[in-house]
Amino acid sequence: MLVVMQHGATQAQIDAVCSAITEMGYTPVPMPGEQRTAIGLVGNDREVDGTGIGGMAGVAQVIYVTKPFKQVSREWKAESTTVTIGPGVTFGRDLVVIAGPCSVESEQQILTAARAVRAAGASALRGGAYKPRSSPYSFQGLGADGLKLLALARRETGLPIVTEAMDDEGAQRVAEVADMIQVGARNMQNYSLLRTLGRLGKPVLLKRGMAATITDLLLSAEYILAEGNPHVVLCERGVRGFDAATRNLFDLTAVPLIKGMSHLPVVADPSHGTGVRSLVAPMARAAVAAGADGLIIEVHPTPERALSDGAQSLFPEQFSALMAELRKVAEALGRAVTPSPGTAPVDLG
Amino acid sequence: MLVVMQHGATQAQIDAVCSAITEMGYTPVPMPGEQRTAIGLVGNDREVDGTGIGGMAGVAQVIYVTKPFKQVSREWKAESTTVTIGPGVTFGRDLVVIAGPCSVESEQQILTAARAVRAAGASALRGGAYKPRSSPYSFQGLGADGLKLLALARRETGLPIVTEAMDDEGAQRVAEVADMIQVGARNMQNYSLLRTLGRLGKPVLLKRGMAATITDLLLSAEYILAEGNPHVVLCERGVRGFDAATRNLFDLTAVPLIKGMSHLPVVADPSHGTGVRSLVAPMARAAVAAGADGLIIEVHPTPERALSDGAQSLFPEQFSALMAELRKVAEALGRAVTPSPGTAPVDLG
Amino acid sequence: MLVVMQHGATQAQIDAVCSAITEMGYTPVPMPGEQRTAIGLVGNDREVDGTGIGGMAGVAQVIYVTKPFKQVSREWKAESTTVTIGPGVTFGRDLVVIAGPCSVESEQQILTAARAVRAAGASALRGGAYKPRSSPYSFQGLGADGLKLLALARRETGLPIVTEAMDDEGAQRVAEVADMIQVGARNMQNYSLLRTLGRLGKPVLLKRGMAATITDLLLSAEYILAEGNPHVVLCERGVRGFDAATRNLFDLTAVPLIKGMSHLPVVADPSHGTGVRSLVAPMARAAVAAGADGLIIEVHPTPERALSDGAQSLFPEQFSALMAELRKVAEALGRAVTPSPGTAPVDLG
Amino acid sequence: MLVVMQHGATQAQIDAVCSAITEMGYTPVPMPGEQRTAIGLVGNDREVDGTGIGGMAGVAQVIYVTKPFKQVSREWKAESTTVTIGPGVTFGRDLVVIAGPCSVESEQQILTAARAVRAAGASALRGGAYKPRSSPYSFQGLGADGLKLLALARRETGLPIVTEAMDDEGAQRVAEVADMIQVGARNMQNYSLLRTLGRLGKPVLLKRGMAATITDLLLSAEYILAEGNPHVVLCERGVRGFDAATRNLFDLTAVPLIKGMSHLPVVADPSHGTGVRSLVAPMARAAVAAGADGLIIEVHPTPERALSDGAQSLFPEQFSALMAELRKVAEALGRAVTPSPGTAPVDLG
Repeated sequence: MLVVMQHGATQAQIDAVCSAITEMGYTPVPMPGEQRTAIGLVGNDREVDGTGIGGMAGVAQVIYVTKPFKQVSREWKAESTTVTIGPGVTFGRDLVVIAGPCSVESEQQILTAARAVRAAGASALRGGAYKPRSSPYSFQGLGADGLKLLALARRETGLPIVTEAMDDEGAQRVAEVADMIQVGARNMQNYSLLRTLGRLGKPVLLKRGMAATITDLLLSAEYILAEGNPHVVLCERGVRGFDAATRNLFDLTAVPLIKGMSHLPVVADPSHGTGVRSLVAPMARAAVAAGADGLIIEVHPTPERALSDGAQSLFPEQFSALMAELRKVAEALGRAVTPSPGTAPVDLG
Repeated sequence: MLVVMQHGATQAQIDAVCSAITEMGYTPVPMPGEQRTAIGLVGNDREVDGTGIGGMAGVAQVIYVTKPFKQVSREWKAESTTVTIGPGVTFGRDLVVIAGPCSVESEQQILTAARAVRAAGASALRGGAYKPRSSPYSFQGLGADGLKLLALARRETGLPIVTEAMDDEGAQRVAEVADMIQVGARNMQNYSLLRTLGRLGKPVLLKRGMAATITDLLLSAEYILAEGNPHVVLCERGVRGFDAATRNLFDLTAVPLIKGMSHLPVVADPSHGTGVRSLVAPMARAAVAAGADGLIIEVHPTPERALSDGAQSLFPEQFSALMAELRKVAEALGRAVTPSPGTAPVDLG
Repeated sequence: MLVVMQHGATQAQIDAVCSAITEMGYTPVPMPGEQRTAIGLVGNDREVDGTGIGGMAGVAQVIYVTKPFKQVSREWKAESTTVTIGPGVTFGRDLVVIAGPCSVESEQQILTAARAVRAAGASALRGGAYKPRSSPYSFQGLGADGLKLLALARRETGLPIVTEAMDDEGAQRVAEVADMIQVGARNMQNYSLLRTLGRLGKPVLLKRGMAATITDLLLSAEYILAEGNPHVVLCERGVRGFDAATRNLFDLTAVPLIKGMSHLPVVADPSHGTGVRSLVAPMARAAVAAGADGLIIEVHPTPERALSDGAQSLFPEQFSALMAELRKVAEALGRAVTPSPGTAPVDLG
Repeated sequence: MLVVMQHGATQAQIDAVCSAITEMGYTPVPMPGEQRTAIGLVGNDREVDGTGIGGMAGVAQVIYVTKPFKQVSREWKAESTTVTIGPGVTFGRDLVVIAGPCSVESEQQILTAARAVRAAGASALRGGAYKPRSSPYSFQGLGADGLKLLALARRETGLPIVTEAMDDEGAQRVAEVADMIQVGARNMQNYSLLRTLGRLGKPVLLKRGMAATITDLLLSAEYILAEGNPHVVLCERGVRGFDAATRNLFDLTAVPLIKGMSHLPVVADPSHGTGVRSLVAPMARAAVAAGADGLIIEVHPTPERALSDGAQSLFPEQFSALMAELRKVAEALGRAVTPSPGTAPVDLG
């Protein structure tokens, strides 16, 4: 059950509702938002009767939520959410394409990559400064130096920056530079990190874990919203599959499935979803046709020399050709690709 | 290793090659084709030296195949295969849409469905007469009566018929009526059935098993080609997944993956792939964008009263709207939807 | 719903019940058994009211079955079933160990193997005459000649024979020789084969499919029982997993899970379950500790020269050592290993 | 490649080797240990030639490691590792049974549970103070108060404490109380947490992630060892499966598989592995028979009132009966169950 307070409800009114919930044997979880405060009930609240609370001062509405997740659900908020990063790139309207290398490797590499994806029409730049790697002996990213290079690339190209944070302390550092903080698949259920990102308030790109159900993913997003940060974009990036022919099993059905269950924007990552360069373009087109709000695609100036994920990174010219295809598919379905910030819309005539 | 005989090679030349293979310690498997006979080697032939055989009379070429499958591979045949069913519906060029109910239930039901999908522009009619059902107590299909009703629906609408065979004996009966014989996911590794279909020579729609790798699927197709029947279309219909939110995990990446590995046409089944009506249209669009050669979609005049698969069957008007979208997506990618047989191409202007 | 007729109910009484079921809008499925005839209802019978039928002449009992499977369930039959093959080897009491090579390869090979597993104390001999192989170019078994060799091995050793049938026609041939007919994982949902085996009446070893849930497996067994053959033993042999370090993911929990849901005996196949020789012994011990009614283990006189499954086949001396361990584990849990037919019980003192 | 320095090698010698590695184009990672310092090479070192380094002063040995993990491998250390916690409970010799409730809920609950599992012969007490829960609205554990109650239970019973840490900050707090710090499945690839635990030096119980291969698990353990902490015990607790009949798919084969690949002790968690109370005992027995070095089992004084995981928690009397069975299975295989600290060995006669 969620108790939605009126806009302008006083703290005393909120406290009174919390006390009433406590007396009913549940634990109240106040969730202040910009517009209104909501109060959730912890515990098995399936049979709770909220009639009495519905009549209390300052209460706008009592919502019985049938799903385990609450604030992320379409039941809680029917209209689709938009999330804006940097200078006017908005998820949830036209298609947003985030592109760039897996890792920031050097100034030349990231600037070359940023200019190339900007030229092809990307909306934002990706690039990892902190890299979660299965092996402690693999390249772990440039760290703080990588963040500086990303900031430089943004100054050069105007592209907002999407980059990953791996822990609470790193999240603080990443938040100082990034326009959007990525949570990787391995950290989808790192609840400490999720709470920290909820408190930081910056837009979050939350990737689905390798064995996570859609309900698991939405519950992880709920952790961020429950801390007061509604700026969350979800990302399908493939789950663990049984066929070694691809790196992951790209579960594209997750896109329309999530959009029916949640109001949050959803993007797809065909690079990790497939792990094979030749499969990225067809699955990127498919993601747009399935209704994704955006894409995140690995592009590297010289994939054969990449320090990570070279096998799934597009060459810049492949990315450019793909962007042309994506515009056509989007247009066929009545949508457009968000132009790079600071550019006029691409003329498709 | 495959030994390809020249067009016009004599039986004596073929026998001589087979003898030579036997003397080398392998078992020859002659595979007569319309154009030429190929002779495969059974057994672990990785280190075989075919130099001697390459010089024998009537031998056109010796091919070292690095994949476990041979005749279905792009190594064996680089150009894409086309498969034609009924009066001019061809897989492997424009998009072919097979539509209709899960099961044939009655004359009225199948005729209503056939006319509806014909009106919306489907290329072929699906409908099960023999149904593989998990429970022996579920509706098992109308059997021979169902086949008669399918033949009637073809006479009424001109649509070629795609229907499933479950065993050797049934395959004979189905082959008398159907334009294309479907092998269901549960029977993908029913090698006896595959061999029978290879000998019958009718076009086959081979669905991927629930736990089959792409290599498994291609090897099953190889069984059919090895018997001399090259008219095989592959179908991705979802694999077993861990999230109960969908019936299966629709592995759409299989489409471009197979097209890179094999010359056979590939279609996708978003109805079984998702199991949820609202997800069929987005994933059908996605399949086209991913490069599928066709779709197989469940449409029922009254899904709420269907004897099987009602929850994933489209209403006729939903199917009609979907066909309009599919034409747009196909056009955006330089393709078209194959018109219903006997009709002029749809005017998109 | 299942209507159980009294022992000695007349055909007229059975017909009357069937008519009554038909009038209620359901389809009756009479299932004659040795002791009594049961009549199942096809269709969604969740809300059916069987009060009227319960009062008809010849009706012993009306059972409301809450699971999709019926005759295989513990609800239908609370006491555990025993299945006896050949000269007194019974599944469902002491541990039954079936052992032998993957395929029958030659007279010498199968006789050597049979004598070796007999010497180590196996209860039955396995060996494939008809082999379902992923590739049409792999060794497919010796066929009818293989069956003759199995019969010879039985004469030499007294061990009952367990061997696989792949299709309806083959099932007839196998039934003439085998003491127990195996259905492989790939054919678990080959319903035509299951029905044929149901009619043949010979004991069946039904292996779980690679993506089959336990409910799927029990429903496949139900096909056999529904045809009047109650002599079914289930087999866990691993499902498709994501870690290539093992051939399959051996789901040993299936053993106690099935034993709670069904009265049928359950055996485990650690050879296919793991695919790795060094893992067979520990997982065989584990299966016994988990409560399996038996094991099926691949043993080959010379695994390094086996035509199939060599990597997972035990050497005879490894099998002999394993048998000693299995006796100890069984004894620790109050059970014993069924001795080879014709031998006195092994003295453990 | 790993360069193992001699016992007593000087810092100057170590620095010289590091310089040589740097000059070869690789990054050296010195890993000081109690006995000797090892120096690993970061990067793709498959073709490196270590001959020159092998001749440098202070170098004992150059090891070419063929696996992606190094220090955890049997190649690196052939003899099995033992890990001792608290007053003399050692993993890697006799069977260690950790038991207790999922969460610490109250003083009475944890003391009752601790006394019950102590009475039944458990070697250590489990209980969560910090709980990773899928939903932010579920009970999250008592936190610091829970740690105090665990310390109290240890004083009362003498049982060492195993409890989970979820983040870097929490790890510090947990390390002050716990005898062994658990890393949950969701955090198996939380590399920041793993590094922190590597530096803290306390024994770690590392649970396998839900989609982790064995190689992934060993690489995560490598993170801890690479920081200088060799006291790691691995835990199989089930992976994500497709059959909702169990909570997870308990991959017991992982136990003998890991023991072949790594020298670290391995325990199994049949409570999470199955999620069903009636399956815990058979799978616990199976784990012992498969060669596990220990078990971790959920036991609750009143499972029906548990705040988490009640459905999989044993009643104390069930646990006591299970312990008796485990002693018999262990004895049959030549092992014993480690007695509770401070007690005489259980007399099995």
